[in-house]
Amino acid sequence: MRSIGVFDSGVGGLTVVKELIRQLPYENIVYFGDTARVPYGIKSRETVIRFSIENILFLLKQDVKLICVACNTVSSFALPVIKSHFRVPIVGVVTAGVREAVYATQNKRIGVIGTRGTIKSLTYENEIKQLAPEVRVTALACPLFVPFVEEGWLKGKVVLDVARTYLKPLKRACVDTVILGCTHYPLLKPVIKEVLGNNVTLIDSAKQVAIEVKKVLAAENLLNNNRKALHKFYVSDNPEWFSSIAERFLGSPIRRVEKVNNV
Amino acid sequence: MRSIGVFDSGVGGLTVVKELIRQLPYENIVYFGDTARVPYGIKSRETVIRFSIENILFLLKQDVKLICVACNTVSSFALPVIKSHFRVPIVGVVTAGVREAVYATQNKRIGVIGTRGTIKSLTYENEIKQLAPEVRVTALACPLFVPFVEEGWLKGKVVLDVARTYLKPLKRACVDTVILGCTHYPLLKPVIKEVLGNNVTLIDSAKQVAIEVKKVLAAENLLNNNRKALHKFYVSDNPEWFSSIAERFLGSPIRRVEKVNNV
Repeated sequence: MRSIGVFDSGVGGLTVVKELIRQLPYENIVYFGDTARVPYGIKSRETVIRFSIENILFLLKQDVKLICVACNTVSSFALPVIKSHFRVPIVGVVTAGVREAVYATQNKRIGVIGTRGTIKSLTYENEIKQLAPEVRVTALACPLFVPFVEEGWLKGKVVLDVARTYLKPLKRACVDTVILGCTHYPLLKPVIKEVLGNNVTLIDSAKQVAIEVKKVLAAENLLNNNRKALHKFYVSDNPEWFSSIAERFLGSPIRRVEKVNNV
Repeated sequence: MRSIGVFDSGVGGLTVVKELIRQLPYENIVYFGDTARVPYGIKSRETVIRFSIENILFLLKQDVKLICVACNTVSSFALPVIKSHFRVPIVGVVTAGVREAVYATQNKRIGVIGTRGTIKSLTYENEIKQLAPEVRVTALACPLFVPFVEEGWLKGKVVLDVARTYLKPLKRACVDTVILGCTHYPLLKPVIKEVLGNNVTLIDSAKQVAIEVKKVLAAENLLNNNRKALHKFYVSDNPEWFSSIAERFLGSPIRRVEKVNNV
């Protein structure tokens, strides 16, 4: 009956929760969004690690049985370090996306887009190279995408112009597969598709992450069978704002969001 | 010989430091930018107050003689509360801008632009109404301006389109004076001028704030006369990034930025 713990710097991780609920409808979920210190993507590795450890300690207090890091910046910057500190299984979002992209690409050219932190970490490049050394990777930071999504500017001329500016190197590199390496980016899929064309496959890791969570829980004999799953949402700031934009990410509204101090 | 303490959520407050250095060249300055938790403009009043108190406590440890809050979100959300807690004189950026705008307007229509926090606080409206009840105020949040400035997208088609979208209500309201209610916005002056036209006066409070700081120091007999002023810069994260964009705000490069934990 213990819950799956999920955390993100803010609201983006709800795209992962959506998929967890779809694939694991009988699991209780506790979500924590660190909205007091959002965003993480512009911050240093050291700071992202410190914040992540504090978030995990909060989730452990809620007696979670597994932690899903629904944030690419944390997954690429901090996962190896934080995994070594804790006994609870921790699943990130990078490996799942990499596996799917390597499987999807035909011409062996993969693009990766993410926050400045994610791209700087080189984690995606390294994981792709490890799995498929022949693949050519073009990785790009798109720092303005997150503010655009959080403002709800998901279509129209301006965001299309921003996408055109950012994604030029991906067009030049003729990638046929692009990893959306940030949990906010799935909301910009239509815009990104319009810029890159319909022949490019966009990889959104949420689906693969949920599959991995299921696999780990099954292996450790931790799957729930209760018929009424509880989903709890905690944030470190602005519960009203979080509720108001949550539906955009989750596909359904959230009734109750609780504000807590995680530090 | 004690220093003036200045703090901001990040790098924007350097536009105020620039003016302090110009008007008070003999004063030592200690600057703190809370880059680990930047931005403040999207966070709640409660959280902005908590962060501000922690920043002030850090500056007090540096033995400052006056604190200048070089952040409009803090000045409008938190100043009355934090002023009541501390004995050190604290100068914010709102009142200075209001005074100048009321003096400048001819047609008694003033526009205010700022972060969501600043606009939601209604502080600008209230202060303007108190000083000049006949003035009509149009206040607007422009949340994407800060990320654009921090990314260095200060000109070009995209940021011009964003400005056109945001500033439409100011054009409709026929304001002749606009308060740039965020320390990042002075860097967008050319863009804002292009949208609003040359007949609109843009008020950037930095100059007035420096005048007020000077006045307070003089009144308390705290002005320095040393000939070699020291300027120290502290941040809670990313000193390299801070240094790299500081020149854009300060007009001159910063040699040394130290990372500290203020909490």
